[in-house]
Amino acid sequence: MEMLNSKFFTIKTHIEGAPQESMFEIKTQTLPPLGPNDVLVKCLYVSIDPYQINRMKSQSSSQNSVAAASKITPGMTITCGGLGRVVASNHPDYQKNDIVHGIINWAEYTIVKTENMLRKLDTLEFPLSYHVGILGTSGFTAFGGFFKICKPKKEDKVFVSAAAGSVGNLVGQYAKLFGCFVVGCAGTKQKVELLKEKLGFDDAFNYKEERDLKSTLQRYFPHGIDIYFDNVGGEMLEAAVANMNAFGRIAACGVISDYTNSGKHTALSMVDVIYKRIMIQGFLLTDFSINDYNDFMSKTMDYIRARKLCVLEDISCGIESSPSAFVGLFRGDNVGKKIVQIAKE
Amino acid sequence: MEMLNSKFFTIKTHIEGAPQESMFEIKTQTLPPLGPNDVLVKCLYVSIDPYQINRMKSQSSSQNSVAAASKITPGMTITCGGLGRVVASNHPDYQKNDIVHGIINWAEYTIVKTENMLRKLDTLEFPLSYHVGILGTSGFTAFGGFFKICKPKKEDKVFVSAAAGSVGNLVGQYAKLFGCFVVGCAGTKQKVELLKEKLGFDDAFNYKEERDLKSTLQRYFPHGIDIYFDNVGGEMLEAAVANMNAFGRIAACGVISDYTNSGKHTALSMVDVIYKRIMIQGFLLTDFSINDYNDFMSKTMDYIRARKLCVLEDISCGIESSPSAFVGLFRGDNVGKKIVQIAKE
Repeated sequence: MEMLNSKFFTIKTHIEGAPQESMFEIKTQTLPPLGPNDVLVKCLYVSIDPYQINRMKSQSSSQNSVAAASKITPGMTITCGGLGRVVASNHPDYQKNDIVHGIINWAEYTIVKTENMLRKLDTLEFPLSYHVGILGTSGFTAFGGFFKICKPKKEDKVFVSAAAGSVGNLVGQYAKLFGCFVVGCAGTKQKVELLKEKLGFDDAFNYKEERDLKSTLQRYFPHGIDIYFDNVGGEMLEAAVANMNAFGRIAACGVISDYTNSGKHTALSMVDVIYKRIMIQGFLLTDFSINDYNDFMSKTMDYIRARKLCVLEDISCGIESSPSAFVGLFRGDNVGKKIVQIAKE
Repeated sequence: MEMLNSKFFTIKTHIEGAPQESMFEIKTQTLPPLGPNDVLVKCLYVSIDPYQINRMKSQSSSQNSVAAASKITPGMTITCGGLGRVVASNHPDYQKNDIVHGIINWAEYTIVKTENMLRKLDTLEFPLSYHVGILGTSGFTAFGGFFKICKPKKEDKVFVSAAAGSVGNLVGQYAKLFGCFVVGCAGTKQKVELLKEKLGFDDAFNYKEERDLKSTLQRYFPHGIDIYFDNVGGEMLEAAVANMNAFGRIAACGVISDYTNSGKHTALSMVDVIYKRIMIQGFLLTDFSINDYNDFMSKTMDYIRARKLCVLEDISCGIESSPSAFVGLFRGDNVGKKIVQIAKE
């Protein structure tokens, strides 16, 4: 095989606060020859996720948790969830032109060491981008977080923050399909309309227009909150705790308020936690079982086929758009799952 | 029956900060005739517990949780867990001279409405005071909180705060008997010695002598904390979260740091909660099942008979000592279970 050049992104220095596009740089490398069992993947879609900011910090307790959250150092390629097409393979299980998903790079090409859990796509029934979002990590996080961590009962009153985000929009939709009462919050009028009109949320509000989140939640949940799916932490979590019902469950999925402002912890009322017997559970999707995964895939594919789930994708085109796609997450630019399409299929 | 006078304590006004003895007053009432099914109890032992301060506030979210945590208003008798002897009964299940435990008053006598879960004592094998502490609510809270909420595994590394307190000392002892590594903290040198020498804790420290609780816990738990049984909240909880291992469990039992300083919430790192998949569960002993209770009683009685549990009681004598006993809880005066003996058996 001839030598192949690949553009890729890296961070110039560690990022401590809110990320800016200027903190990233694009480089070109000539790919080395494939090692034994290596697979060369042409990247098609990469998943753009807020948690990646924690990997870009010089230090964060998050970086020791699981391999997928390990530290990204300046100059290094940025790994991420994604999907691509096999260009060359030294591994017997992968052939040229196979569509694969797993951990790839913010790059045109990735040499994947196969122990990184590369998977061949099971089906070509859906648009390939779905496997980066609704049928990928975002969908599985929403499904596992809601059903396994929150343990919903029909008619439970469910609150979702960042409800127009990649995970939040699906939590709300799963909750509605399951028979819960669902209210979401988001940061623009357009997102709020979307939640109510298109995604079937019972109600939604723009948190930027609210001055006292505790009374806002009291207004939207006059009978209290049974389940809070938390993507933001901070004041929203504090307000949710104040409005939780007895035996309420909080799935701690993300804490975007803390990612770019790490001094700003959540001031929790432990009196409420105790007397209302609230359960707060942090989780990562890597902890769910293969059974959970199969359950997620079969149910979600069925819902998509029956047009019961609305697929919200927000796709930027070209590898050059990766930094702005990422930076935009922290401004709330994205509607639904943020994806960069690196190359045409 | 002749008219009976009974001394009782009440609060003069609602109590918002740290309680003082002057905030209580002793009164005498002439007891009214017994109604149908009423039982007149001569109070022998009353349980003195920190959570009662939440009932004495003009307002606290705690007051809506369960009947036993309902608001105490000035002038009203102060209900509490306790044990006494039946003096007269209009209820067919209770006879004169029966020893009963349940909800009584900070008073010489209590007319108990029997729907308040008065129970006849099953056994006279142990000192009566045990049924207010180790075989009462403190023991059941420790047992249920540790085994049902923390779900321990052998060799788990367990941290207990307020470890010389009524619940904490038993959590540590149960954990040692179960095969865990246990470290406790307390507020005096004497208590720390007691934990190590008499109660068999693997180690203990005086939190008042520590300047940076995060590094203190790192020193005592070089391999991290699997279970934190939290009786105090605040900075100790923050430090524990920083030192928890993946899949750590925190039983939120008490938050004495918040009871007398309700603005002071716990600044939780939700990044740690998520990436370490920490579970925080508030609980009240009223939620445990009858099965749990029977399990608690039979195991604990066996341990006491085998002298495997050390019974730590701190008993004041005479109804007049109730306010100072209570106020002392918030200064850490008590060693083990604080009880007031109202009358000789």
